[in-house]
Amino acid sequence: MVLVKRGKFIAFEGGEGAGKSTQARLLADALNARGISVDCTREPGGTPGAEAIRDLLLQPPGEGWGAEAEALLFAAARADHVARRIEPALAEGKWVISDRFVDSSRAYQGGAGSLGDEAIVELHKIGSGGMRPDLTILIEVGEDAVAQRLSARDGNNTDAIGGRDLEYHRAVWTAFRKFADDDRDGFVIIDGNGTPEEVHQRVLDAVEARLGLL
Amino acid sequence: MVLVKRGKFIAFEGGEGAGKSTQARLLADALNARGISVDCTREPGGTPGAEAIRDLLLQPPGEGWGAEAEALLFAAARADHVARRIEPALAEGKWVISDRFVDSSRAYQGGAGSLGDEAIVELHKIGSGGMRPDLTILIEVGEDAVAQRLSARDGNNTDAIGGRDLEYHRAVWTAFRKFADDDRDGFVIIDGNGTPEEVHQRVLDAVEARLGLL
Repeated sequence: MVLVKRGKFIAFEGGEGAGKSTQARLLADALNARGISVDCTREPGGTPGAEAIRDLLLQPPGEGWGAEAEALLFAAARADHVARRIEPALAEGKWVISDRFVDSSRAYQGGAGSLGDEAIVELHKIGSGGMRPDLTILIEVGEDAVAQRLSARDGNNTDAIGGRDLEYHRAVWTAFRKFADDDRDGFVIIDGNGTPEEVHQRVLDAVEARLGLL
Repeated sequence: MVLVKRGKFIAFEGGEGAGKSTQARLLADALNARGISVDCTREPGGTPGAEAIRDLLLQPPGEGWGAEAEALLFAAARADHVARRIEPALAEGKWVISDRFVDSSRAYQGGAGSLGDEAIVELHKIGSGGMRPDLTILIEVGEDAVAQRLSARDGNNTDAIGGRDLEYHRAVWTAFRKFADDDRDGFVIIDGNGTPEEVHQRVLDAVEARLGLL
């Protein structure tokens, strides 16, 4: 029997257009280059079951989901993602990088939505044993930069979540900052202004400092 | 402004093949004949959103749902069903009859599954404010009768829930009995043996006694 050292789990969080997906990919490439095997994933989604739930969330049948059903669907997708992909990969010694995790639910459905943080945390406890990333990287960019990046994206950003108004996105950001303030060991806030390469260097420095890469 | 008297909410519960759907329909007909407007529905399902979740539950993508994801999906479907259909119908003065409600989740995912009753009750509190029917009618039939009725149904009964083994279905029944014992005001246990008409008369007597028809 070979004992495998458990991998590390890193989540990227932040509002729309903060550059999370780009930074997740750049970090995965940098880890790969150091010989670390990485599974790069996203939420909602990441498994066949969770991707099917993602479709229901972004294109709701009928009148659209109420806050409660929406939060339960996110938690269901996450439970599948953790059980079927994240945990097995970590157990095999891979590092897992996820574009969004539970703090997105806490910020969007809890802090900025009507459910409150306690309910979202409880759903995560029931669904996924309350699993936390080893490090959550919160990417912060100014409102002007967000608006500019979103308008520069191909196509329309008008799915059921992304299409909500600026006030809502401000409440999301306030919630994210509070989570980071409440758990300074688990979070790092990264300045997302500048070129992707500049931001990537900050991310890499933080990962090295916190998780002890090479 | 016209004040409308809130309708009553009745749920039928029991194992597979107990005759719940038949009895729900017969009761709806009997109430209609007395001039009561009835909305007859089922779980999981009953709204476009909840029916879409039902499809995911019965035909899971990928490897099949774990217990946690399954319980969260049932709770999500129920939250939509309660918010979009049951509550509005009751508020309009209609009676609502549902083929299964939260006690099916408590029995199948809680009592007979691995999650435990407390988690299911908590999900229902977050998702649907802990809503209880005015009366839950538990239909009890012997194991032999169940096996016979199931084998007499058209097609195969091999979806993801119905296909589980006899031991599981016994645990489900033990759980149902316990819920009824713990809440004698909210439940009535009906002997499901005999012709549908015989069982229907027992149901009707119980509804009259408990909810004061006429």
